[in-house]
Amino acid sequence: MGCLGDSFTLHDPVDMHVHFRTGDMLKVVAPLSAATFSGALGMPNVVPKGFDSSTEVGITSQTMLEAYRNEIVEAVGGNFTPMMTLFFQTTYTREFLEGVKPHIKAIKFYPKGMTTNSHGGCDPNDPEVLKVLQLMEELGIILCVHGETTGFVMDREKRFMAHYEYWAEQCPKLKIVMEHITTKDAIETLARFQNLHATITTHHLLITLDDVAGGMLNPHLFCKPIAKRPEDLWSLRDAVFNRGIREEVLDKIMLGTDSAPHPQNRKESACGCAGGVHCSDCVTNFGARV
Amino acid sequence: MGCLGDSFTLHDPVDMHVHFRTGDMLKVVAPLSAATFSGALGMPNVVPKGFDSSTEVGITSQTMLEAYRNEIVEAVGGNFTPMMTLFFQTTYTREFLEGVKPHIKAIKFYPKGMTTNSHGGCDPNDPEVLKVLQLMEELGIILCVHGETTGFVMDREKRFMAHYEYWAEQCPKLKIVMEHITTKDAIETLARFQNLHATITTHHLLITLDDVAGGMLNPHLFCKPIAKRPEDLWSLRDAVFNRGIREEVLDKIMLGTDSAPHPQNRKESACGCAGGVHCSDCVTNFGARV
Repeated sequence: MGCLGDSFTLHDPVDMHVHFRTGDMLKVVAPLSAATFSGALGMPNVVPKGFDSSTEVGITSQTMLEAYRNEIVEAVGGNFTPMMTLFFQTTYTREFLEGVKPHIKAIKFYPKGMTTNSHGGCDPNDPEVLKVLQLMEELGIILCVHGETTGFVMDREKRFMAHYEYWAEQCPKLKIVMEHITTKDAIETLARFQNLHATITTHHLLITLDDVAGGMLNPHLFCKPIAKRPEDLWSLRDAVFNRGIREEVLDKIMLGTDSAPHPQNRKESACGCAGGVHCSDCVTNFGARV
Repeated sequence: MGCLGDSFTLHDPVDMHVHFRTGDMLKVVAPLSAATFSGALGMPNVVPKGFDSSTEVGITSQTMLEAYRNEIVEAVGGNFTPMMTLFFQTTYTREFLEGVKPHIKAIKFYPKGMTTNSHGGCDPNDPEVLKVLQLMEELGIILCVHGETTGFVMDREKRFMAHYEYWAEQCPKLKIVMEHITTKDAIETLARFQNLHATITTHHLLITLDDVAGGMLNPHLFCKPIAKRPEDLWSLRDAVFNRGIREEVLDKIMLGTDSAPHPQNRKESACGCAGGVHCSDCVTNFGARV
């Protein structure tokens, strides 16, 4: 990034967390990512066009990976690099991981049922999880994590820290990315382990729960993890913008917008508004505001 | 209340906090209160039919009180007692309060801008507030309070406790009702001052922030004060149902539903969903569920 006075220039920005969706929605939103970014890491909690969404939980095979990459490339053209992820499963073998490694940037862990399309996720306490993480460590495959437990909504990320700590200790060479962190607790944990990394969204650098539910209720700022307390916002901003304060974490933090579009009728609804903020097309404006 | 096995009987239940609204909405919702309750305390943050809502902030005169009472009585018939409140203003004089006293049950304090129709409210730090409270103490007029400060949404009630404590100490004979309390902090404060009383809604005995924003976002459970943490819910339930635990507060707690209907399009909206749960017609079912 170059910076001169009040202006700054981003060279080849990359979005390290995006939901391209699939089908018609993908055709609309993937080009918006490509308009702003030179590449992006696509999340795997999606069943690509041509696969059976009643049986598949997400991208769990090389065939699905290839189909999904093709769907993205077809929508965005050549000047954009989609980086692929696989949906973590405890059934993955060494042979499978060796075969799939050249085709992916990372494997994404979803706690079962914690967010949109995560019913096929795993229990972080399952001992089988660690076995796959150890294989990934050996093979040099990056782990991305949606780090929330069940329990009270404002405590879910804080309570997941124990899992990050355990995995970081047990697999010291495994590169672990704490996705879309939102709390002071996460910044503290990130600072303590050399092999922990993190993404932060632009909206979590701008809003707290006050913006979602402090005045009128705002479904378009509702996302998972939910925006937290003012002290959490300040901690995230310090980590990203005050190099002097948080030297040990700044180089481990990446931008990941977690851009997650929903149809309007699923955001403005009586029976439950879906979680997700879509912002891949306006993210640099957001950043400039911060 | 009579209780036999799994059933219980409520004799002449009274709702100590309800928003009757005005005009067409009143005609719909006031009869719902009358169908369940023998009487109810109507909130004054409303401009009755026939008055100018662009200049009036709420019910601040005897003429408005009478007009509003007539509007309610016309809608519900004779078997229901509407109890009237006045919108607290620092301009109220002893003469005015003496004159209005026979026509009201209480005066309601709204912190400026904290909730629906409270732009005409007062700053609780304004020294003029205490002068009016001292007059009310002398005259034996009850004070009802929407007890929230500005600031982070989950802390607003907690931070208002200092005002309750100051007023309870300065005016030891003033009966103060902490309206729709939602937190462990409020229960602790209630226990400490003999002249503090409280209302609790049925929904705050049932839900936490998890029900509003823990899964999908639920605009119909969004209200002010917002539902809080699980430990707050347990504290409210203990105070209401476990006589042994909270002997000193149980007799000071009343049911106040804070039933606050909005048109559907203001609850399910892109640009902000209004706060308020309407429940005057189903409140006894809620109570039985708890």
